[in-house]
Amino acid sequence: MTNDSSEKSANDPSRMWGGRFSEATDAFVQEFTASVNFDKRMASQDIRGSIAHANMLHSVGVLSAAERDAIVDGLQRIDGQIQAGELLWQVALEDVHMNVESRLIELIGDVGKKLHTGRSRNDQVATDLRLFLREGIDAIDVLMRELQTALLDQAERHHAVIMPGFTHLQSAQPVTFGHHLLAWFEMLSRDRERLADARARTNRLPLGSAALAGTTFPIDREMVAAELGFDGLCHNSLDAVSDRDFAIEFCAVASLAMNHFSRWCEELVLWSSQQFDFVDLPDRFCTGSSIMPQKKNPDVPELIRGKSGRVTGDLVALLTLMKSQPLAYNKDNQEDKEPLFDAVATLHDCLTALCGLIPALEPKAASMRQAAGAGFATATDLADYLVRRGVAFRDAHHIVGQSVALALDKGVDLHELSLDELSGLCQAIGDDVFDVLTLEGSVSARAHVGGTAPDTVRTAVRRARERLT
Amino acid sequence: MTNDSSEKSANDPSRMWGGRFSEATDAFVQEFTASVNFDKRMASQDIRGSIAHANMLHSVGVLSAAERDAIVDGLQRIDGQIQAGELLWQVALEDVHMNVESRLIELIGDVGKKLHTGRSRNDQVATDLRLFLREGIDAIDVLMRELQTALLDQAERHHAVIMPGFTHLQSAQPVTFGHHLLAWFEMLSRDRERLADARARTNRLPLGSAALAGTTFPIDREMVAAELGFDGLCHNSLDAVSDRDFAIEFCAVASLAMNHFSRWCEELVLWSSQQFDFVDLPDRFCTGSSIMPQKKNPDVPELIRGKSGRVTGDLVALLTLMKSQPLAYNKDNQEDKEPLFDAVATLHDCLTALCGLIPALEPKAASMRQAAGAGFATATDLADYLVRRGVAFRDAHHIVGQSVALALDKGVDLHELSLDELSGLCQAIGDDVFDVLTLEGSVSARAHVGGTAPDTVRTAVRRARERLT
Amino acid sequence: MTNDSSEKSANDPSRMWGGRFSEATDAFVQEFTASVNFDKRMASQDIRGSIAHANMLHSVGVLSAAERDAIVDGLQRIDGQIQAGELLWQVALEDVHMNVESRLIELIGDVGKKLHTGRSRNDQVATDLRLFLREGIDAIDVLMRELQTALLDQAERHHAVIMPGFTHLQSAQPVTFGHHLLAWFEMLSRDRERLADARARTNRLPLGSAALAGTTFPIDREMVAAELGFDGLCHNSLDAVSDRDFAIEFCAVASLAMNHFSRWCEELVLWSSQQFDFVDLPDRFCTGSSIMPQKKNPDVPELIRGKSGRVTGDLVALLTLMKSQPLAYNKDNQEDKEPLFDAVATLHDCLTALCGLIPALEPKAASMRQAAGAGFATATDLADYLVRRGVAFRDAHHIVGQSVALALDKGVDLHELSLDELSGLCQAIGDDVFDVLTLEGSVSARAHVGGTAPDTVRTAVRRARERLT
Amino acid sequence: MTNDSSEKSANDPSRMWGGRFSEATDAFVQEFTASVNFDKRMASQDIRGSIAHANMLHSVGVLSAAERDAIVDGLQRIDGQIQAGELLWQVALEDVHMNVESRLIELIGDVGKKLHTGRSRNDQVATDLRLFLREGIDAIDVLMRELQTALLDQAERHHAVIMPGFTHLQSAQPVTFGHHLLAWFEMLSRDRERLADARARTNRLPLGSAALAGTTFPIDREMVAAELGFDGLCHNSLDAVSDRDFAIEFCAVASLAMNHFSRWCEELVLWSSQQFDFVDLPDRFCTGSSIMPQKKNPDVPELIRGKSGRVTGDLVALLTLMKSQPLAYNKDNQEDKEPLFDAVATLHDCLTALCGLIPALEPKAASMRQAAGAGFATATDLADYLVRRGVAFRDAHHIVGQSVALALDKGVDLHELSLDELSGLCQAIGDDVFDVLTLEGSVSARAHVGGTAPDTVRTAVRRARERLT
Repeated sequence: MTNDSSEKSANDPSRMWGGRFSEATDAFVQEFTASVNFDKRMASQDIRGSIAHANMLHSVGVLSAAERDAIVDGLQRIDGQIQAGELLWQVALEDVHMNVESRLIELIGDVGKKLHTGRSRNDQVATDLRLFLREGIDAIDVLMRELQTALLDQAERHHAVIMPGFTHLQSAQPVTFGHHLLAWFEMLSRDRERLADARARTNRLPLGSAALAGTTFPIDREMVAAELGFDGLCHNSLDAVSDRDFAIEFCAVASLAMNHFSRWCEELVLWSSQQFDFVDLPDRFCTGSSIMPQKKNPDVPELIRGKSGRVTGDLVALLTLMKSQPLAYNKDNQEDKEPLFDAVATLHDCLTALCGLIPALEPKAASMRQAAGAGFATATDLADYLVRRGVAFRDAHHIVGQSVALALDKGVDLHELSLDELSGLCQAIGDDVFDVLTLEGSVSARAHVGGTAPDTVRTAVRRARERLT
Repeated sequence: MTNDSSEKSANDPSRMWGGRFSEATDAFVQEFTASVNFDKRMASQDIRGSIAHANMLHSVGVLSAAERDAIVDGLQRIDGQIQAGELLWQVALEDVHMNVESRLIELIGDVGKKLHTGRSRNDQVATDLRLFLREGIDAIDVLMRELQTALLDQAERHHAVIMPGFTHLQSAQPVTFGHHLLAWFEMLSRDRERLADARARTNRLPLGSAALAGTTFPIDREMVAAELGFDGLCHNSLDAVSDRDFAIEFCAVASLAMNHFSRWCEELVLWSSQQFDFVDLPDRFCTGSSIMPQKKNPDVPELIRGKSGRVTGDLVALLTLMKSQPLAYNKDNQEDKEPLFDAVATLHDCLTALCGLIPALEPKAASMRQAAGAGFATATDLADYLVRRGVAFRDAHHIVGQSVALALDKGVDLHELSLDELSGLCQAIGDDVFDVLTLEGSVSARAHVGGTAPDTVRTAVRRARERLT
Repeated sequence: MTNDSSEKSANDPSRMWGGRFSEATDAFVQEFTASVNFDKRMASQDIRGSIAHANMLHSVGVLSAAERDAIVDGLQRIDGQIQAGELLWQVALEDVHMNVESRLIELIGDVGKKLHTGRSRNDQVATDLRLFLREGIDAIDVLMRELQTALLDQAERHHAVIMPGFTHLQSAQPVTFGHHLLAWFEMLSRDRERLADARARTNRLPLGSAALAGTTFPIDREMVAAELGFDGLCHNSLDAVSDRDFAIEFCAVASLAMNHFSRWCEELVLWSSQQFDFVDLPDRFCTGSSIMPQKKNPDVPELIRGKSGRVTGDLVALLTLMKSQPLAYNKDNQEDKEPLFDAVATLHDCLTALCGLIPALEPKAASMRQAAGAGFATATDLADYLVRRGVAFRDAHHIVGQSVALALDKGVDLHELSLDELSGLCQAIGDDVFDVLTLEGSVSARAHVGGTAPDTVRTAVRRARERLT
Repeated sequence: MTNDSSEKSANDPSRMWGGRFSEATDAFVQEFTASVNFDKRMASQDIRGSIAHANMLHSVGVLSAAERDAIVDGLQRIDGQIQAGELLWQVALEDVHMNVESRLIELIGDVGKKLHTGRSRNDQVATDLRLFLREGIDAIDVLMRELQTALLDQAERHHAVIMPGFTHLQSAQPVTFGHHLLAWFEMLSRDRERLADARARTNRLPLGSAALAGTTFPIDREMVAAELGFDGLCHNSLDAVSDRDFAIEFCAVASLAMNHFSRWCEELVLWSSQQFDFVDLPDRFCTGSSIMPQKKNPDVPELIRGKSGRVTGDLVALLTLMKSQPLAYNKDNQEDKEPLFDAVATLHDCLTALCGLIPALEPKAASMRQAAGAGFATATDLADYLVRRGVAFRDAHHIVGQSVALALDKGVDLHELSLDELSGLCQAIGDDVFDVLTLEGSVSARAHVGGTAPDTVRTAVRRARERLT
């Protein structure tokens, strides 16, 4: 940025709102207030919106067919130039809208000045932003679906691999690795539901609200909505130009999804440690150390875990931004784009990484099984056994506590206690108790909906595939 | 809190998990880790969940009819005692669940110990919390609907009251007060949509997940779901006991709603100022000053505006809480309740206040109209007039800029310029121009869907009433 | 809450600002806008501030000696009643200030009405809040210092216990447990520095600013500051009544401290897992499971980890609250107290818990040492050895990489490779290489300031004790 | 980004940690994990740090003089190339450190490989980041000081301009515009204090901590600290490589400052409205509307107000990022840079804008005075008058309430009531009452420290100038 004042810009006819002003906006302020450096990312949406607007203006008699054709043709040429990297973006023209319109007038002459009839930058930018987000959501949804499938495939493959289930990071009961992956699948399924809900509220057309009050031209908003694929109209012009709920809601959805990924990646990092040694991460998702050549660092999971912070930050930025703004559009709203763009890109990139990582994840079944067998993980099974023998649950719990204390004392696991020792604690214990104390016995017994039994996991995968859209 | 060690509690049979421990949890830690002081708010939900669980245990043969009856009867008596304020809550019993169960055993003896069969506090607390939130959501939805109706009534009543529409807090174009209130209505409508979406994801049953892996008893989760009014089951036990998405999603929904109310209240505070003087707030929503007796402070709007901060804080607290937690339940999750309770109560109270305030709001039509007439608010209408006379929009804009400069120079408003002065700037201007420069002409001309015309506002109200559920 | 209108309150002379109002504030609004339920926590500060104010009013001639004595005596009696739980707090009197003043007038009659001369609730509440926070800070600082000492004691005790140092949760290089605890000490030292900085900015007197502009009475603000122990005055009345920086700054300091504790507790939870098995947490900081009696859950560390979320939430609540508020006092500010009180209490409680936990922490040295010996943790030492033999660092790094690959291939650790194998990779390697490949050799060689060598740790502890104030 | 796998990079000797890996990091992951696109902003700091490191390595005998000279010369040439935009940054080289080192080896050959002796990227990046932030802080402090001077100049110029002081956005008492600006000055003064405190904690040297445990080379950390201008050393290597407190603390300081600016700008936007009409903002800080040519929008204040959201977002992002990270360095930390860079740049730019805006701000004194005269703004003065006549404050307050009610009833201001009317309400009122009811009388009477009297404002400005460093 520079502080040179730019006298030229004050006399520049391309300064669209310059009529009234007697003083030059100096260069710093121009740079400070311009948005083109980031909103040019919406150029393709801006052009599509303008084409739909021009078609509608023709349809209602504001533009002649020739004017419409000239404008549409000009806009399409500009789109091509942008894609080819040939458009010179000018900060003096403030934003993507003015850059495109100014270029249009250069290309097709005065007829280009008619395009802005019946609209304002306020409804134009709201339209662009919703189109941009809708496309971001759709791309994210494709990746989420792919990731769901990857999780189901892995869950099916490893439906019978036994690992310790943790609470408080203490080994609690044996579960299957497939069951654990289905927990991740459930989180992601809710994320997709929320994404679809957010999409429905994003996909409403603000165009036609003009600056804030609507326009005096006989516009046909339904026609524009249909051409642009919107599901409906924003019903109030004051609200439409100042509503950024859709951006905030998306960031909330993205924050929750990233929070889930942060939890998965915390587990991947734990499991990759020498201490857990539960999984092998593919080398291409890891890096080494510049000073410790033996290290294989789970960089990608760590980075995804870290990136959850920035999306929560984006959400807070937008909530703070909109707090206490009176109607209708205020310049503050220009600050809505960067956090939203960042949240879309971050979620998209992390999903891309996970779509590569998850299918390549290899459980170390032997190591998992050994861990599952330690820590009296079938104590609950013993308690349930006692209840089935008629002991009240709370009393059964107390007896199991004594059994564990005895086993700890002798340095053995529960199934290594003798029948005498066990029945000494409770006469209801018979020698069929040893069946329930095995890992396989424990997991297989939890066969109700939502349970960890291998067959239940396979059924859950099948049903999930059926539900998957 | 006190640091006295409480030897007693270590030997207390009511310490349900005390079997293994050789050392007393000292009193500070007991207080620090106990949740009963806040989770007792879920006592009614806890009891209903337990009754449904007992009924199911009987249905699948785990409890006899007599056992079930004793338990259900005992629980209902406890519910009555709680409602009557007669239950002595004990911190030594940690939480609402243990307080209720312990009381049950006191009341009905050993059979009470059978209630906890096939479940765990992990799935129990998740169930209670979802029931609590569902009821909070339903109460909030009733208030939101009432507030929507109040806005529609006010919008209809004031559909033709003209006020300045603002962008950048500068008077931009005239709008109707009814139209402005409909903008608020639209925000609230989206809030209700989001609330309904959040309810759907809240209303799934985690019970049956037990500690983390499900249970070995032949439970019937659908039966419990039906009795408690849940729409479906949580499909994975590991996820079910550790999922707090529903709490976070609700807080996000509540943050957005509070952000809306913060915006409305900002406007009410502005409008109540001597400078704007647009509305008269009923005295009962204001207070005075201890030192300036002439003051009439818009306390309720200010307080609502301020309370938006705490709900955003609740949201951030919960997002931070869940970040990076490995599966399944961790003690961290005990911290989920207070932010959620606070968000529910705050949103509920603010809605209650607004349901009183909005119907009593009186616009000062004369003052609004005067403000709408200042500031060249019909400049856009002049530009549109020129376009209809064949001037390209961008050129029209430039001519209007010159007209405003001329009017500013002469100290008059646009409609006070003479036809000669106006046609001197653009020959296309005829004497019908003065029709479009009036306030009524300006608002009436914006008659498309979403526009500010009085008739359009009435139509919008009618359609909104039809959509209202 | 109830919606009955309370006609009585409108005619109640105790409604201090009621003169102008013709309409009753109804009961809900009274409850909604009242703060006494939470600000009564500042009663002792309020009374001390009032006593200082009365003394000053006497000193400058506004109160007679007899009036001052009556007021001071009355306030002290109220203080006693509050401590004894004998004051009946009334929501109809809104806040702690009015409750105290109203009681004062009851006790001593009309002279009590003179106390509020030359001040306003706006400067009064700001003074109370700063006094409250200052005392909270001082109590927290005492605990932080105690915790620092506990860390130094433990670091000294375990200065030579070897454990693996991690990066990316991968074992990287051996470090000493004492060194690790000193890292925690450093974090806490910065927290104390920040706390002291925040205290300095808290400890400035707003009283004398009255409602917003100062007062017409000849007050002596320095006298009040001296009596109340403030270090200086707030220099501008408009700022003084609306500044809540001190509350936000404290919450930022508390959030950072809680973030540190969240990191420590994450480590304690990891170390307590069967997989790491690095420490033994005292039973009294753990609880068990209602269904898995063998579990010993690190509840206190988990809860502290979880509580970091609420303090970050408090910080965000306050930042959001103050955003965009125009000068001077607005009712929004009433919302400043609960987040601040919560942050003070949470930090205080977590410190109390840690002051009990840290001294009782027992490292499992054998388990740590075994983990430190795995994973090629002395690879860096080999690289450094090569550099000292003249190999460029980046080349040395490459050779070590080959060595690790060879060792992995053979299933041995680095020091188990033969001299032939090692010198086959690089001729510079001699048989003195085995000295640097031991754990003791590795840690002892890092003896510079900040390094992990046992002697260095002891020196660091000694210097830290000298710096400790 | 592309998903093509890049076989080449796996065999690329420039992949510094590539020795162990058998599988190529594919292109997406390379891009995903690389930081060079944003951390190249620290190139100059990286090079200065490397020069200091090389000088130290020579001083302790690890590098010969010739080696040191070659390295320093090479680094300086790279610095020149970077400034000239001639260095080709390579994503395959991950980060700024590897790009610089790789270029160094290209330029000076194998001796370049010796530079990394005794350090790691972990301590290197921490050093770079602290240097970067220190320079950012220093530049910000210069602007803050300039802005303080501008506020003092304006306060002095307008020390006697009377405007309404507001509470609850209701006119409360007259104040002087100079006094109002000094409230802003006070906020900014605290910001500078906090900035200085944050600088002190930033300016400590982590270099020498190597990867996490220190190094086996006989390094001289004090020498490096002195050369780089650090005030001291980080005392613990594990902490030094993972501590990001300084970044979080800066973001907290910046959030508070931005919150202040958000408050100022809210006032500027209010004051610029037609309704308030208190100030004239220079045209160059405003823009117009594309559809409403008469508008003069306060864009720069609005944008600054909006930008407060992004800095709060940056703070939350960093707090979330660091939550629960175990020691020592984790890859998550790579995410620390973008939020910090954004906060530094945003605060810097907003200060630049304010340094232009504040000196050019023109109060509209007549409009302010008129507003100050309305709304019974001297009611408090009447109350104080009564107290001086012996009426107890609370009784005086009640009498003033009746006076205001009477004046409202008659449609006049307080000083327009007759002496008979006033003394009818309270016999203590004499005809000297009219002196205290003027605006000048009101402001001049508040002459104590912190008060609004014009002379007091001038004194406050003089003292503030003396304190200014």
